[in-house]
Amino acid sequence: MLPFARISIIGLGLIGSSLARAIRATMPTVALTGTDADPGVRARVLELGLVDDVADSPGAAVVDAELVLLAVPLGAFAAVGAEIAAELAPGAVVSDVGSAKQTVLDALSPLMPASVHLIPAHPVAGTERSGPDAGFATLFEGRWCILTPPAGADEAAVARLGEFWSRLGSKVEVMEARHHDLVLAVTSHIPHLIAYSIVGTAADLEGVTRGEVIKYSAGGFRDFTRIAASDPTMWRDVFLTNKDAVLEVLGRVSEDLAALQRAIRWGEGDTLFQRFSQSRDIRRAIIEAGQDTPEPDFGRHSS
Amino acid sequence: MLPFARISIIGLGLIGSSLARAIRATMPTVALTGTDADPGVRARVLELGLVDDVADSPGAAVVDAELVLLAVPLGAFAAVGAEIAAELAPGAVVSDVGSAKQTVLDALSPLMPASVHLIPAHPVAGTERSGPDAGFATLFEGRWCILTPPAGADEAAVARLGEFWSRLGSKVEVMEARHHDLVLAVTSHIPHLIAYSIVGTAADLEGVTRGEVIKYSAGGFRDFTRIAASDPTMWRDVFLTNKDAVLEVLGRVSEDLAALQRAIRWGEGDTLFQRFSQSRDIRRAIIEAGQDTPEPDFGRHSS
Repeated sequence: MLPFARISIIGLGLIGSSLARAIRATMPTVALTGTDADPGVRARVLELGLVDDVADSPGAAVVDAELVLLAVPLGAFAAVGAEIAAELAPGAVVSDVGSAKQTVLDALSPLMPASVHLIPAHPVAGTERSGPDAGFATLFEGRWCILTPPAGADEAAVARLGEFWSRLGSKVEVMEARHHDLVLAVTSHIPHLIAYSIVGTAADLEGVTRGEVIKYSAGGFRDFTRIAASDPTMWRDVFLTNKDAVLEVLGRVSEDLAALQRAIRWGEGDTLFQRFSQSRDIRRAIIEAGQDTPEPDFGRHSS
Repeated sequence: MLPFARISIIGLGLIGSSLARAIRATMPTVALTGTDADPGVRARVLELGLVDDVADSPGAAVVDAELVLLAVPLGAFAAVGAEIAAELAPGAVVSDVGSAKQTVLDALSPLMPASVHLIPAHPVAGTERSGPDAGFATLFEGRWCILTPPAGADEAAVARLGEFWSRLGSKVEVMEARHHDLVLAVTSHIPHLIAYSIVGTAADLEGVTRGEVIKYSAGGFRDFTRIAASDPTMWRDVFLTNKDAVLEVLGRVSEDLAALQRAIRWGEGDTLFQRFSQSRDIRRAIIEAGQDTPEPDFGRHSS
């Protein structure tokens, strides 16, 4: 039996449109409604035939839905929550795909009627592309989806949402929202922040032209530019809404970088060597866990 | 006509063994001699048949060579230079593949006989793998090779070395050594340092287990682990020998990161958005310049 027969997706960018495609591919009988704040995106989704029905507003999109998935930037959650609250069907599960989770509970909990189940979720998947044309059905395959139900959430509803993500090919984990936010600060938010930062630094540096940075980027820099090409609105909102965890981890990052800086200044080769030697084990473990390709250079080389 | 008929490669790891393979593939009549400090590597290279002759020592390897290529960690240059100096044929070109260039001039210039041409070079290519089995013939194709001849270097010798790299498929650029070191600090050394640093930070963080870091690495962290899996000895020596340029750029990196940190703390969304919006242009330019793949996720996804 399908976990949900009628699903509504609010926001049809990379993740929302991938959800639509993945649902179509794995649960073709689901009645799928979608909407997006951008009329151009709504038109394109209609053209691509990604959903059965494109609604003009979030409120209209959620009527009758058993599962509502918010796939909009985190900064828009409160407004969308207010728009849909009165239209939600009793018993509906309201979930999302946002990269920070305590903020979702904070924004939506006060707005949701008692008859719906709010269960935030975060599929740890994505690419640097944006928009409905960038999505694809296999985006969530083999990736983790983390559910962060609030205390006292309905267990059956949590299980149904987990079953939904399993159908899309994801591995499901349940976690407390604040812990999620710290884990993702480390594994996702800080890497993006540093990538954005260093790409900016390189672009503005005196003595080195932008052309030189581009020409010689194969020395390592280009690896950083991929995630720094991600959607700026989405990431602005991640940093604004997961501020505490990001700042906490960033403090540690700065401290550790300063220690390496000092080791370089004082010529402490052993310190550098020891620090550099740890990383291979982690890379190997990530590959063994199926979370990256074992091919050198991410398989970019045709060796 | 071949730029060099007899070539000797000192150091047969990823780069040295790729050179051997690339020379075999593009200039099959070249007489190729190689050596490595590690007897296990020498035996493996013999087994793989990568060179015509495996010598037991650098001194023995360079006799009669028209081109000598040092592909050892930068910290070994002075010792290797001392070993080969007396054996070099008059008119030989001595070059290398090191990631920092002023240090090569400093280490080798005093040791080289007046009859040889010292022309340091740096192919901006590589993968995170190490050792003779990791090499491949197409590693240098479409990548830049930067020559950093000292003032007054023989122009014909520089041209021959440039022709050699062109035969391997590289694009050749000539640059002053100190400028090279600053450019590569930005495009390669600092990205590696930051990647090593953040992988270390993530591994040691209180409150987040190593298992969690590995599981959720697809959120961005895994991109950093690739270059942080590179050879620790090689990279230790890069940071010790290109100290000044690395520390200079690192100062700017810390400053820019602190500015983002402040913007997050004070909720300055516009600052974040503006900073994040710049990066897409650079990514696009790198792809247009043929220095990275346009595929989302480096082509890791089978979308």
